[in-house]
Amino acid sequence: MVDETAEGVHDDGAATSERTTVRRGTPRARYDRGTIVGVLDSALVAHVGVDTPQGPLVLPMAYGHDGETMYLHGAAANSLLGAGADAEICATVTLIDSLVLARSAFHNSMNYRCVVIRGRGRRVDDPVEHEHALRLISDHVVATWDHGRAPSTSEMRRTFVLALPLDEASAKVRTGDPVDEPEDVGGPHWAGTVAVRTVFGRPVPAADMPEGTPVPVPVQRTFGNSGSSA
Amino acid sequence: MVDETAEGVHDDGAATSERTTVRRGTPRARYDRGTIVGVLDSALVAHVGVDTPQGPLVLPMAYGHDGETMYLHGAAANSLLGAGADAEICATVTLIDSLVLARSAFHNSMNYRCVVIRGRGRRVDDPVEHEHALRLISDHVVATWDHGRAPSTSEMRRTFVLALPLDEASAKVRTGDPVDEPEDVGGPHWAGTVAVRTVFGRPVPAADMPEGTPVPVPVQRTFGNSGSSA
Repeated sequence: MVDETAEGVHDDGAATSERTTVRRGTPRARYDRGTIVGVLDSALVAHVGVDTPQGPLVLPMAYGHDGETMYLHGAAANSLLGAGADAEICATVTLIDSLVLARSAFHNSMNYRCVVIRGRGRRVDDPVEHEHALRLISDHVVATWDHGRAPSTSEMRRTFVLALPLDEASAKVRTGDPVDEPEDVGGPHWAGTVAVRTVFGRPVPAADMPEGTPVPVPVQRTFGNSGSSA
Repeated sequence: MVDETAEGVHDDGAATSERTTVRRGTPRARYDRGTIVGVLDSALVAHVGVDTPQGPLVLPMAYGHDGETMYLHGAAANSLLGAGADAEICATVTLIDSLVLARSAFHNSMNYRCVVIRGRGRRVDDPVEHEHALRLISDHVVATWDHGRAPSTSEMRRTFVLALPLDEASAKVRTGDPVDEPEDVGGPHWAGTVAVRTVFGRPVPAADMPEGTPVPVPVQRTFGNSGSSA
C-alpha cells in the first residue's frame, strides 16, 4: 500500500486529537462516526497493540462496540489485556475490499477500510457494564447471547473486559482503480482490480449435538439453516 | 476468543525466544516453520505494531517474505516504518477459518491461524536486497512483478523497505468444534461452527484500460480471466 495518491474519498470531519490525525494519504482520511461504526460493525477481529517490556505486542481479538466504546475480553490471566489496563493501547480493524493491480509495482495497492483507535484501556469492574460488554462481544457477528445458556457467576468473574473509548478513532478508506503514471496509461501493461470478499458457510452442528436441535433464529437468519460447510 | 481449552493442536517445536513463548492456550502454540510459512503465504496483510511517544500504533501493511525475513514497504516518509527502523516491532498475520458458536457465550470462539513475529526492524539499504524485497511484496498474492512496467530509479528511491527476521515467530492455531461445559452437552442449546472464507472475484480492468489488453497469465491463473466483479 505504498500508493497514496488522492482519490475518491475526502475529509468528512475533523480529527479528534493530534495523534489520530492521519499523516499519509490524507485525502483518504475520514473521521466521521458513520464510516468508523460501519467498519467496526463489519469486521470479525481487531488487532490490538500494547507496549510491553519486550517491545510492542499485537494480537487479534474478538470485540464488540456500542458506538461509544470498544470492548475486548479475555481470560483473567490474559497478559495482553492486563498490559492494556490503564495503559495506552491501539486497536486496529481492517477490511480488505480488493487487490489493486497497477501497470507498475510502485502503484500496486489494495482497496481497504481501516479504523485505528488509540486510547487508554480501562478495566471494566462494574457488573452492569461488564455484562453489557460481554453481550456486545457475543452478539457482534451474530446475536447469540439470548440463545445460549446464561453465563455463570464464575464464568463472568473469570472474564476480563477492557474498554477503549472510540473518542480517538480515525478511518482510512481507499476505493477505485489503480492510479498509474500518466505515461504508463495506454502502454502495453494491464491494470485492474480483483474483488476480495469474506463469505460464510452454513451453520454446521457440533459433533456432540443431538440431531434435530434447532439452529437459533439469528444464526439461521444470518447464515442459513444448518448444512454442510461452504 | 476467551475459550482456550486444549484441543487438536500440539507443540511441534520449541519457541525460539522467551518473549515468543505463547503463554495462554499453550496446547494451540506452534513454532514449526511449516505452519508459520503456510499462514504467511495465505494472508493479505500484516498488522504491524510499533511503539511511539504517543503510545502503540498498529497499521495494516502489505508484506512479502522469503521464509527467513518478512519485508514491509511504504513511502519514504511513512512514519510507522520510520519508527520501526532499528526498533522493536511486532507483525501479526491472522486468518479466520470459522466462527465457533458454543452453548454458552463463555465458550464462543473462532477457529483461526495466527503468526506473531517480534524483532528489530532493519531498514534495507542494499539495492539488491531492496529489489528482492519489493519483488516479494509485489508477488505475494499474485506474481505481477515481471508483468508490469519495471520500477524507475526514482520509484525505488521513494520506497522504504523494512526487514523483520522470522527468527522470533510463533503461531497459534485453533481448529474444531466448540468445547462446552460437560453439563451443557445434551442440553437444549445449539452449538456448532460457521466457516469463514476469503474469496476473490475475477480481474476487472481499470476504466482507463484499452479494450483487449490481455490479463497477465499469473493473474488469469489465480483469479480467472477478466469479467465482472464476484
